[in-house]
Amino acid sequence: MKIHVVNPNTTLSMTEKIAAAARAIAGPGTEIVARQPAMGPVSIEGYYDEAFAVPGMLAAIREEEEAGAEAHVIACFDDTGLDAARAIARCPVIGIGEAAYHAASLIAGKFAVVTTLARSIPPIEHNLVRYGLISRCARIRAGGFEVLALEDPGSGAVEKVSAEIELAKREDRAEAIVLGCAGMADLAARLSAAHGIPVVDGVAAAVTFAEALIRLGLKTSKLGGYAAPLPKIYAGSFAGFAPESHAEATPPGGWK
Amino acid sequence: MKIHVVNPNTTLSMTEKIAAAARAIAGPGTEIVARQPAMGPVSIEGYYDEAFAVPGMLAAIREEEEAGAEAHVIACFDDTGLDAARAIARCPVIGIGEAAYHAASLIAGKFAVVTTLARSIPPIEHNLVRYGLISRCARIRAGGFEVLALEDPGSGAVEKVSAEIELAKREDRAEAIVLGCAGMADLAARLSAAHGIPVVDGVAAAVTFAEALIRLGLKTSKLGGYAAPLPKIYAGSFAGFAPESHAEATPPGGWK
Amino acid sequence: MKIHVVNPNTTLSMTEKIAAAARAIAGPGTEIVARQPAMGPVSIEGYYDEAFAVPGMLAAIREEEEAGAEAHVIACFDDTGLDAARAIARCPVIGIGEAAYHAASLIAGKFAVVTTLARSIPPIEHNLVRYGLISRCARIRAGGFEVLALEDPGSGAVEKVSAEIELAKREDRAEAIVLGCAGMADLAARLSAAHGIPVVDGVAAAVTFAEALIRLGLKTSKLGGYAAPLPKIYAGSFAGFAPESHAEATPPGGWK
Amino acid sequence: MKIHVVNPNTTLSMTEKIAAAARAIAGPGTEIVARQPAMGPVSIEGYYDEAFAVPGMLAAIREEEEAGAEAHVIACFDDTGLDAARAIARCPVIGIGEAAYHAASLIAGKFAVVTTLARSIPPIEHNLVRYGLISRCARIRAGGFEVLALEDPGSGAVEKVSAEIELAKREDRAEAIVLGCAGMADLAARLSAAHGIPVVDGVAAAVTFAEALIRLGLKTSKLGGYAAPLPKIYAGSFAGFAPESHAEATPPGGWK
Amino acid sequence: MKIHVVNPNTTLSMTEKIAAAARAIAGPGTEIVARQPAMGPVSIEGYYDEAFAVPGMLAAIREEEEAGAEAHVIACFDDTGLDAARAIARCPVIGIGEAAYHAASLIAGKFAVVTTLARSIPPIEHNLVRYGLISRCARIRAGGFEVLALEDPGSGAVEKVSAEIELAKREDRAEAIVLGCAGMADLAARLSAAHGIPVVDGVAAAVTFAEALIRLGLKTSKLGGYAAPLPKIYAGSFAGFAPESHAEATPPGGWK
Amino acid sequence: MKIHVVNPNTTLSMTEKIAAAARAIAGPGTEIVARQPAMGPVSIEGYYDEAFAVPGMLAAIREEEEAGAEAHVIACFDDTGLDAARAIARCPVIGIGEAAYHAASLIAGKFAVVTTLARSIPPIEHNLVRYGLISRCARIRAGGFEVLALEDPGSGAVEKVSAEIELAKREDRAEAIVLGCAGMADLAARLSAAHGIPVVDGVAAAVTFAEALIRLGLKTSKLGGYAAPLPKIYAGSFAGFAPESHAEATPPGGWK
Repeated sequence: MKIHVVNPNTTLSMTEKIAAAARAIAGPGTEIVARQPAMGPVSIEGYYDEAFAVPGMLAAIREEEEAGAEAHVIACFDDTGLDAARAIARCPVIGIGEAAYHAASLIAGKFAVVTTLARSIPPIEHNLVRYGLISRCARIRAGGFEVLALEDPGSGAVEKVSAEIELAKREDRAEAIVLGCAGMADLAARLSAAHGIPVVDGVAAAVTFAEALIRLGLKTSKLGGYAAPLPKIYAGSFAGFAPESHAEATPPGGWK
Repeated sequence: MKIHVVNPNTTLSMTEKIAAAARAIAGPGTEIVARQPAMGPVSIEGYYDEAFAVPGMLAAIREEEEAGAEAHVIACFDDTGLDAARAIARCPVIGIGEAAYHAASLIAGKFAVVTTLARSIPPIEHNLVRYGLISRCARIRAGGFEVLALEDPGSGAVEKVSAEIELAKREDRAEAIVLGCAGMADLAARLSAAHGIPVVDGVAAAVTFAEALIRLGLKTSKLGGYAAPLPKIYAGSFAGFAPESHAEATPPGGWK
Repeated sequence: MKIHVVNPNTTLSMTEKIAAAARAIAGPGTEIVARQPAMGPVSIEGYYDEAFAVPGMLAAIREEEEAGAEAHVIACFDDTGLDAARAIARCPVIGIGEAAYHAASLIAGKFAVVTTLARSIPPIEHNLVRYGLISRCARIRAGGFEVLALEDPGSGAVEKVSAEIELAKREDRAEAIVLGCAGMADLAARLSAAHGIPVVDGVAAAVTFAEALIRLGLKTSKLGGYAAPLPKIYAGSFAGFAPESHAEATPPGGWK
Repeated sequence: MKIHVVNPNTTLSMTEKIAAAARAIAGPGTEIVARQPAMGPVSIEGYYDEAFAVPGMLAAIREEEEAGAEAHVIACFDDTGLDAARAIARCPVIGIGEAAYHAASLIAGKFAVVTTLARSIPPIEHNLVRYGLISRCARIRAGGFEVLALEDPGSGAVEKVSAEIELAKREDRAEAIVLGCAGMADLAARLSAAHGIPVVDGVAAAVTFAEALIRLGLKTSKLGGYAAPLPKIYAGSFAGFAPESHAEATPPGGWK
Repeated sequence: MKIHVVNPNTTLSMTEKIAAAARAIAGPGTEIVARQPAMGPVSIEGYYDEAFAVPGMLAAIREEEEAGAEAHVIACFDDTGLDAARAIARCPVIGIGEAAYHAASLIAGKFAVVTTLARSIPPIEHNLVRYGLISRCARIRAGGFEVLALEDPGSGAVEKVSAEIELAKREDRAEAIVLGCAGMADLAARLSAAHGIPVVDGVAAAVTFAEALIRLGLKTSKLGGYAAPLPKIYAGSFAGFAPESHAEATPPGGWK
Repeated sequence: MKIHVVNPNTTLSMTEKIAAAARAIAGPGTEIVARQPAMGPVSIEGYYDEAFAVPGMLAAIREEEEAGAEAHVIACFDDTGLDAARAIARCPVIGIGEAAYHAASLIAGKFAVVTTLARSIPPIEHNLVRYGLISRCARIRAGGFEVLALEDPGSGAVEKVSAEIELAKREDRAEAIVLGCAGMADLAARLSAAHGIPVVDGVAAAVTFAEALIRLGLKTSKLGGYAAPLPKIYAGSFAGFAPESHAEATPPGGWK
């Protein structure tokens, strides 16, 4: 099976780290295609960056779906553009944020999230509220460093994540930790060993869940908010992104 | 005072209808600047269209803020790109959806929303959940017609809205109606008279609330999720959208 | 347009301070009529005081509505008697508490409330729960002083409010502050400047929202809980407060 | 033990019906003192009536507490003035609405409420939201008749209640019924037998719970929102209602 | 009237302490039958212990119902097996946890729970969420000692409970305390006196509420989740526990 | 990898159907061990049956964990005994109910559940409330037939499920269907094809998620409510079920 993992930012080293994490967890018969958009921010830190990460990411999703991808993973912890991606895709689309929350919910009563900057706390909270899982989240914590500091070993970023995990255990009664940035994909095992608490990386979780959904034959429902976009004109430089009709209710061969 | 009303889709007749509604309600000293993006969908019907409406809308917001706008109104009922707009703006930004919900909450215990297509119900519900006002909403109803049908008198769209209002009174115990599309801005008065129930149009509500916030000296908070975007590189055709630093905590002259 | 601002307590200096704040923010064509009840407590600190503030306040509302008021503002942060006022009024009625919450929700993700005494925290929380906006409130804080201390410059009350604002920024991640007492109406600008955070005064917010609703032609819905009181006998010293029939569903001329 | 049951409206026949229901359920050693206010509405149908029922009811509570009452029952289904009564009382105060909800929660997963007029639905819903028990309520139904119709055997009111109970079983999956008006206190047994579903009358429930709290030695907490009113001047015709200081944290002899 | 109080664990000294607390509060005409299961854990500390306490407890409930019990009290603060007991019983079944929450809700705005071990916090929170009363709970605190330490005067357990009560008053704004273990049934009066805050013991509360429900003629509803178990085969050593048919909708003589 | 799938009821034909469904979806390297308890009910229909299914199921889990199982799947849609199983297991434990809800949440905005008897609706709703996913559930529907009717082709049970799916699409705006009984494990594909909507079977979903968690190295957290049971005596016929100490915080080799 073929899974498309899209890093919505345009930093190649993060794409490579994410691809490595995805390939390390993927099953033997799984091919991982890792991409990044041709345009947009080098990191996603807040709502404005998100807005400019989405168009290029959606283009990647359309191209890879044409090229045979059976599932898409959005490798930004904000689950950037997830709803739009589900609308344009036929196969399943999983955000690494939601994958991590669902995985943590299967092994612990309450989890804490540890992310990068405080400005990322509101978008994460919004997602948890929408997904319904806010009641499972003990607290969202921020280490206070920029995303790209995770690419710099001397930045002290890992130590800051570690300190927040300790606080989450002591003050929040967290029973598991969710790492709140795709750039932390390589840290889960060692932080879990150091702190004696399950630590969930969303990239790995999303890849295994994507494989699960493919095997289950479950595809994104087209009956409500994720109905295929109606065919219409897109003006100006976005003309090429205009949707064609995919509006049929049931794909040939049925849903499964 | 100068208020920028942006229609996030690229259909000129809707921009004109919205501008007329805004000017009809604006106070004597208020200048309305109405715009639409240079690129993007001709109407916004679901999550995919939203994603391509946002970049051009954010450009309009940045330009009008430079040109002296004191508040921005996003004239799409989905409050498309509201969070990103708040992050890049210094002055207040109001979505017509949220304006309508807040106005309805001030005159009624429960309101119903009447929108266009069923696929727009989930994004509206998501917004209500995030804003906290879902408990004030008796039900979200869809008339079952496309947005641009509102531009065509023979389409029967107005009759369908009217029928849903009647059902909302009878079945949902709705005490007020919120019109769920910017293209309905000209219908509020006559539907209210016909059904004997307050009917709220978001464009008019947002313009009056924008005037209120300007007079109150209240600007978007820069302390949390709406902090100014960090300066960084945007790759490819989005290079020109990259944020410059606006990161100072307090603007010169304080908050008010 | 004519707006009636009622201070539900019987302290003249507070009525004057509230009237000054209302007039300072009101638009050029707006007449502010400020009143206080003929009977009731000199300040409202908890549920018992509220109960005795309401009858006189409702009398004021009925009289001013007869005299041509187009909207009423209830200038007590507990939104004392708001529901009863809406039932007897035809025009809009806005509490300064709810006005402040709605305004803060338009410029910030989360706000904190700073009020006077700890005993006022439960009524404020009850209101936020009912309005649906509790999820937008980071925390309700009390400075620990009585309402009338705000009328005494040497009481240290302002310093206590200021200290709580600092804690709300640091500990609660509040992005805006709502001042939780009508007696703080003169403090918003200077506290905002001092702390670099938007600070919302409910009196000013309510006046601008009242002007907005008047211009929008939106009146209190009479279809549910705010239906006009049924005509009936009131016994004893309350005989004069008995409602006459206002029960018609639609006022002459329709809703707008 | 002595329990004060106050009917907040001024209709003597309802006070007598309530007193009879209270005495019928009270234990052998319990004395029921039933009163009604000297002033106020003859029935409570909506928020405006509530406001004028409270002052006289609070006077009754203060007098009966002086006269040795060990608990107070507020015999209006809206739990009219419950918070203010708790603030002025030292002993427990129970509303018949909350008593019925708590009793129903002990014998069924979900209950439905059947009340009189549709305008009473919002106040009932507000109470359920505040108490936390809205999630246990399948639906609030209104029979569509005025309170005093329950005093008139030919009014058809009982038949309307019965019809709503049948709908609650069939459509709402209600497992128990709460009668939503003090004037229905005599109907519970026969409606339960007729419909084969537990039917809860709040007057009876409140009396037994008041006895329980007295025996448990549990009194209203004075540590938060129900702290004794601060001593202060009440102006005008309410001068006699002004609170004296009851502010000590622990009554002599401790809490129990 | 005859009330069956079942201690779901198998420690005789706890059964005796519970029986003493129940008899101390019971009314003059009430007979208390106190039992413990023939099989199962000596204390209930977490979900695993709960699972093995339930079968023996259900046997006790069936036997005592046959023997004429008119209500059952489950004397474990986790309300162990409450749903299953309600399904097999015809008369009311009350858990001491829920009884304490309901009692505290009648005398205070917010309560805190003080239990034994931290591992008991999640089951208590689950119950509060299901009952709807989580919004009334300021915090669940654990003293950090095992249940049977309460049987050992030198264990320091009482001092630990006392310290948590002090923190609940100071940090959580708790207005009442709920003791979170049946083994604390003898502590309520002295802790209330020591801390000047109402302290609720669930055993006493449940007995008085059971008397109330018996007098009210209210029995467990058989219309939904508590319908009598369908007759079926139970395999192996549980054969004797198989339900016989109790499925009739209305017991002879009606509900009341 | 080795996954233990336990059917908590004692009907062999259901165990075999569940085992077949599990093996059909399992990956090439996965061994499925399917068991049923030695004692307990032949089907689980409501809370009473659940209580007697748990002890035997926990014995199966302990034995299979000793025998090398790396994950456990509880194949009853009520997620019977899930919390107790997590407390005694070290490896992950997944209920088929929760697995289905999480899977449906990844491919649709809202799902409906279709179960067997109406009495199963409350336990399912309780689980959804606890998991946090009740906001994703449009409605829980019951076909009105007993569990074992699914083993009888002539019972009409499948047709009843099919009719409820049609209603869920039309009336509830459901975007996906969750089959609410382990005995429906063989129906998902054909119902999905017939109705043009994704249909989720919990057995298949749970097996793929168990494989995912094993590969991710995620085990049940032992830091809170799922801490290993404390060593203690179990009286009578449950003596053999008493826990030994597993209380160490971190297993040798760390968490991952």
